[in-house]
Amino acid sequence: MTEPTNPLRTQIVTRLLALGFSKEQIVETKAARSCYGYDATRQNIEPLLALLPENELQVKTILKLATEKGLKIFPRGAGSGMSGGSIPSHDGIIVSLTKMKRILEIDEENMIATVEPGVITGELQEVVSRLGLFYPPDPASLAFSTIGGNVTENAGGPRAVKYGVTGNFVMGLEAYLVNGEKIKCGNKCIKSVSGYDLTSLLVGSEGTLAIITKILLKLLPAPEAVKTSLLAFKSMTGAAHAVNAMLKHQINPSTIEFLDHHSINAVRSALPFTLPDETDTVLLVEIDGPKALVESQSLKLNELFKDEALLLIAARDENEREQLWLARRKLSPAIANIAPHKINEDIAVPLGAIPEVISRLESLSQEINLPIVCFGHAGDGNIHVNVMLDKNDPDQAERGQKAINKIFSITLELGGTLSGEHGIGNTKSAYFDKEWGPVTIATMQAIKKAFDPDNRLNPGKIFPT
Amino acid sequence: MTEPTNPLRTQIVTRLLALGFSKEQIVETKAARSCYGYDATRQNIEPLLALLPENELQVKTILKLATEKGLKIFPRGAGSGMSGGSIPSHDGIIVSLTKMKRILEIDEENMIATVEPGVITGELQEVVSRLGLFYPPDPASLAFSTIGGNVTENAGGPRAVKYGVTGNFVMGLEAYLVNGEKIKCGNKCIKSVSGYDLTSLLVGSEGTLAIITKILLKLLPAPEAVKTSLLAFKSMTGAAHAVNAMLKHQINPSTIEFLDHHSINAVRSALPFTLPDETDTVLLVEIDGPKALVESQSLKLNELFKDEALLLIAARDENEREQLWLARRKLSPAIANIAPHKINEDIAVPLGAIPEVISRLESLSQEINLPIVCFGHAGDGNIHVNVMLDKNDPDQAERGQKAINKIFSITLELGGTLSGEHGIGNTKSAYFDKEWGPVTIATMQAIKKAFDPDNRLNPGKIFPT
Repeated sequence: MTEPTNPLRTQIVTRLLALGFSKEQIVETKAARSCYGYDATRQNIEPLLALLPENELQVKTILKLATEKGLKIFPRGAGSGMSGGSIPSHDGIIVSLTKMKRILEIDEENMIATVEPGVITGELQEVVSRLGLFYPPDPASLAFSTIGGNVTENAGGPRAVKYGVTGNFVMGLEAYLVNGEKIKCGNKCIKSVSGYDLTSLLVGSEGTLAIITKILLKLLPAPEAVKTSLLAFKSMTGAAHAVNAMLKHQINPSTIEFLDHHSINAVRSALPFTLPDETDTVLLVEIDGPKALVESQSLKLNELFKDEALLLIAARDENEREQLWLARRKLSPAIANIAPHKINEDIAVPLGAIPEVISRLESLSQEINLPIVCFGHAGDGNIHVNVMLDKNDPDQAERGQKAINKIFSITLELGGTLSGEHGIGNTKSAYFDKEWGPVTIATMQAIKKAFDPDNRLNPGKIFPT
Repeated sequence: MTEPTNPLRTQIVTRLLALGFSKEQIVETKAARSCYGYDATRQNIEPLLALLPENELQVKTILKLATEKGLKIFPRGAGSGMSGGSIPSHDGIIVSLTKMKRILEIDEENMIATVEPGVITGELQEVVSRLGLFYPPDPASLAFSTIGGNVTENAGGPRAVKYGVTGNFVMGLEAYLVNGEKIKCGNKCIKSVSGYDLTSLLVGSEGTLAIITKILLKLLPAPEAVKTSLLAFKSMTGAAHAVNAMLKHQINPSTIEFLDHHSINAVRSALPFTLPDETDTVLLVEIDGPKALVESQSLKLNELFKDEALLLIAARDENEREQLWLARRKLSPAIANIAPHKINEDIAVPLGAIPEVISRLESLSQEINLPIVCFGHAGDGNIHVNVMLDKNDPDQAERGQKAINKIFSITLELGGTLSGEHGIGNTKSAYFDKEWGPVTIATMQAIKKAFDPDNRLNPGKIFPT
């Protein structure tokens, strides 16, 4: 069936072609537009139009035109977001930054990369590693997600324990305001107190304040050595105490991932080693840095937990390391066997609250009679909570929805936050006021209004509608 | 001479006494008010009134009353600021947070301190160190400056090289808006992407957006060992290359201070060791962390520079460490012998630009015929530039002023920033637009307006007036 012509779309396309956009940069057909209206939440709304600017002047042109016509703009990277942050409206224009993917500079002396937003995170990591440098943030999506998307959602990853999240590496930005004017913030200086920190304000703002066109990223020298260990514990409390003990004993792992007993059961049979039957929680610990440090800390790890842990395996080479990681990597496909669907939240809590949150989620699971599988980043309190269900069963769907509400209540009661690394987007905006009181939300909204008075830049995200 | 009665002052005092403030919390006389109108820039303007709230409700009461009367409010810590950030106007009210100095909680499990803004930085460091914990930010003023002041100016210090500045340790805040309403931002979670990062926006906002009443600070385990070394080099370029080589070779010092040849000449005779005559630049390098790491990195430091450096002394104990630090500590009093006054700026540049900026300042010094003494934080690019002069000589004063303008131009040309750790305050606001273009400044001002529509909270700071 042919889609009826939309006069507004036709008008914009004509203008953009006249302004030098090529046909390949303008996505017009319904099917093609649909490819720019999804993300990892499986929502899918085709926009009025999707545009693929190749440089910042084209971003400016789009914003000026949208301002003239009063149109909504939805910026977008690779669409790997987990909270609907890039989902457009039917009357909005998608601005995909995927064609702006140049690594503009790698300043080896100052260890800073300057990139366009469409650069793939994993590709940047590869390029800098060839120069002996290291860009630590490692969201699970790094093989396809973009730096721009990582910045606007402040993406995390396992290495956040030691290195922090994307925002900790953003030194500066260039961005276009909704009216097409350009701001610059930050610089290549390690210290700077000159006016408000607009860089940190734009990081994690989910594309609601400006379209980022250039990003300065801090790099580190590549670590000399990495050592991976797997530790099995009888209880979550035991594992949580182990995490605390590591940090207190000057062991500073780059990664401390955990798997709960549901997760373990899901992957157990696929593992190339045998986990003791009593295993309730597994920790995957990675230590990196100078060789001498990695060795001494690995020895200390062994000393500290050789009695307490049910099992402690330290990888001796890259092959063994890969085997230990198998447990974690096989997890997402493996838990799909538990139920056809999952509702997946990425709450974060203070480190000390992990055992309590896991135990309360256990009770909740019994209460709603649905499995709740937890795994994630034990070293930074960021837990991926998966309520396993069949969404086609209305009763299960209702119980699942109830569970989410309860999960957020438990999280906030324990001093936690709705999202550790995925953002609020449109999937968690209904819960946003549970976390922040009305004055704080009004203050955030006043900032939004200062940047975007007509609410045309990525509307419907973060704030309850 | 008795000061004439001010009816507005009398009226406010009467109201506050009726609202439960004690006489000790209200500073009325001209002489006493003057004690709340200075800072380290030696400006001194006595305010209409100075108030010393003891709790957050009193802060709220003051803000509500000021809103009712349309009065300006100037928040203030210990008055150790170097850029005039806390200087009031004659018709404004000082809110000194020095009586709000409780350490509310030290959460050892999560390694987070919750404090009121008036806590002295050095006292917090002592209290947490007794628990085996570590609060790294170490501004030179730490014996008397407050955490609140450190947060609003985003204070740095020598240890910023490895640990970052104050802002890197602020996990959350509670603050009162100018209208007396309270916002909360951040939490005890290591990762959080839930709405705009108001915490980072308030850090370094120099008291222009809100009055901070509660601060959550990240703590670290205290380092096991510290090793201090002094290295002498023939040239600034040689020293700068050494800094770069350290970082590239996985040596991650907590401190890399430098002294230029003027600084060295000023302190040379007072040192308990002999510096070679050809010494142009001295580096003071401190490595901390787990013992094994400190030892291996100190060995590496020695290997790398034993030939290149004119002198390399490694302290073997606390006493020798103190002797090495003498050079740095004697500096401020010693350079006072060069000329009766100094104009002191704290520019920061990208690491790689240090030799160039020092060489250009050398030329500038010859051009204006005034000594320019540079020292500071070689590891993070933050340089304390001191133009030495006699301000009572109008010709020197004029040349000094010209020099400041030139120093900022050189800094910005090399990708630097007006302030690494002191802030803009009222002393650098005239230069603010040299660093940021009109759109970026307008964006910051729109944020200011969103928080403080009538410009009553610390007006006259940061932005050019």
